[in-house]
Amino acid sequence: MPKFKMTIAYDGTCYSGWQTQPNGLSIQEVIQSVLQKITGKPIPIHGAGRTDAGVHALGQVAHFSTPKVITQKSLNALLPDDIRITHLEEVDEKFHARFSAKQKTYLYRIHTAPILLPFDHKYVWHLTYPLTLESIRNAIPLFLGKKSFKSFANESTLRDDTVRTLHSITLTQTPTGFTLAFCGDGFLYKMVRNITGTLIDIGRGKLPLSAIRAIFSSEDRRFASQAAPSQGLILDHICY
Amino acid sequence: MPKFKMTIAYDGTCYSGWQTQPNGLSIQEVIQSVLQKITGKPIPIHGAGRTDAGVHALGQVAHFSTPKVITQKSLNALLPDDIRITHLEEVDEKFHARFSAKQKTYLYRIHTAPILLPFDHKYVWHLTYPLTLESIRNAIPLFLGKKSFKSFANESTLRDDTVRTLHSITLTQTPTGFTLAFCGDGFLYKMVRNITGTLIDIGRGKLPLSAIRAIFSSEDRRFASQAAPSQGLILDHICY
Repeated sequence: MPKFKMTIAYDGTCYSGWQTQPNGLSIQEVIQSVLQKITGKPIPIHGAGRTDAGVHALGQVAHFSTPKVITQKSLNALLPDDIRITHLEEVDEKFHARFSAKQKTYLYRIHTAPILLPFDHKYVWHLTYPLTLESIRNAIPLFLGKKSFKSFANESTLRDDTVRTLHSITLTQTPTGFTLAFCGDGFLYKMVRNITGTLIDIGRGKLPLSAIRAIFSSEDRRFASQAAPSQGLILDHICY
Repeated sequence: MPKFKMTIAYDGTCYSGWQTQPNGLSIQEVIQSVLQKITGKPIPIHGAGRTDAGVHALGQVAHFSTPKVITQKSLNALLPDDIRITHLEEVDEKFHARFSAKQKTYLYRIHTAPILLPFDHKYVWHLTYPLTLESIRNAIPLFLGKKSFKSFANESTLRDDTVRTLHSITLTQTPTGFTLAFCGDGFLYKMVRNITGTLIDIGRGKLPLSAIRAIFSSEDRRFASQAAPSQGLILDHICY
């Protein structure tokens, strides 16, 4: 049966996250119901990874199999405006959206200017206290490499292997703040948001640079900072 | 009593427009209710002009008078995220948001790429048919100057004087389409959207260039094209 890879962009504001769950409407559910409308049959789709309620995506990836002819245009015609299929292609049967992924990039957008324009508030974290970007830049190397990110993972993944390789965190200044780009082989549940929260606490002087090593070696989530809010996070790209 | 000029940015998606009306929540109403919360008294605000339901603003202006101390920060703290006061200053008692305005700029954003990203759909008009920008550029000069725009005004303003001066319409290409910037001394009800709808009909070959003069001389709204939808329009700036 032909297998398809779809790339999906979505505004996560109105959804309970990527993955289908008992309460709330998920993005996965909405796409599956459109596929069922087109094909007349329930078709499960498999995402590259979950995103939480309020988290956005430019390049989420999922796969599914169907003998029917499916076009990107027919999917977009039936999907709501806040979910768009940006690419659809037939792939080899060995392709798996999650297990074939080699690298993922997440962006976390931070707004530091006093006024947050009404068009941006669902897509950034607005910080009004003073931040030293130099401190954040100095802390970044301490997060990179292959190691256990158990202290930066929330409960639901603690049964899994917590070792991941974080290749880079790039801080880029924007006209109204800055963006952190996280590039790694994979991310634990809430890992990007927990690291971002910790980096911001360093930037505002609430946490010393020396705390990072202690947080890593504790392997205890309670030592890291509060997670940065969901709306600033966007799943940017997945490499296969 | 001290008089204040406020500059306001808003996402019009969730509102019934700028002006208070019997049905739906207006932006004016929301700001007035916050002013009443701060001062303890009802304070009417006077906007530079109405914007319709779904129309946005980066630089709407309004004035009000109050003996109380009002700060931009206290207003923004109580306003919803989709309405922001971007500037607040005390002005001369002769200042009037509507009558002192010398020039207004509106932007109309058009998206022509096949996929409209989920973050943009509330802020652009998505056109999927082929357009010849050269035809639109050739038509623009026919709209400029001081003349009656009665054929491009909807009913509610037909009792007023319909002569306005349109200084310029600038077409700028963007990575996913183009923007039309309208600069004039004032605009009639739905005038920008009616002109945009007519320009697009010229761009798609539905209307010949020669029709423009006939539409103007008819002084009849029925000869112009359908109004472009509200969500692509943004009140950008007002000069005093």
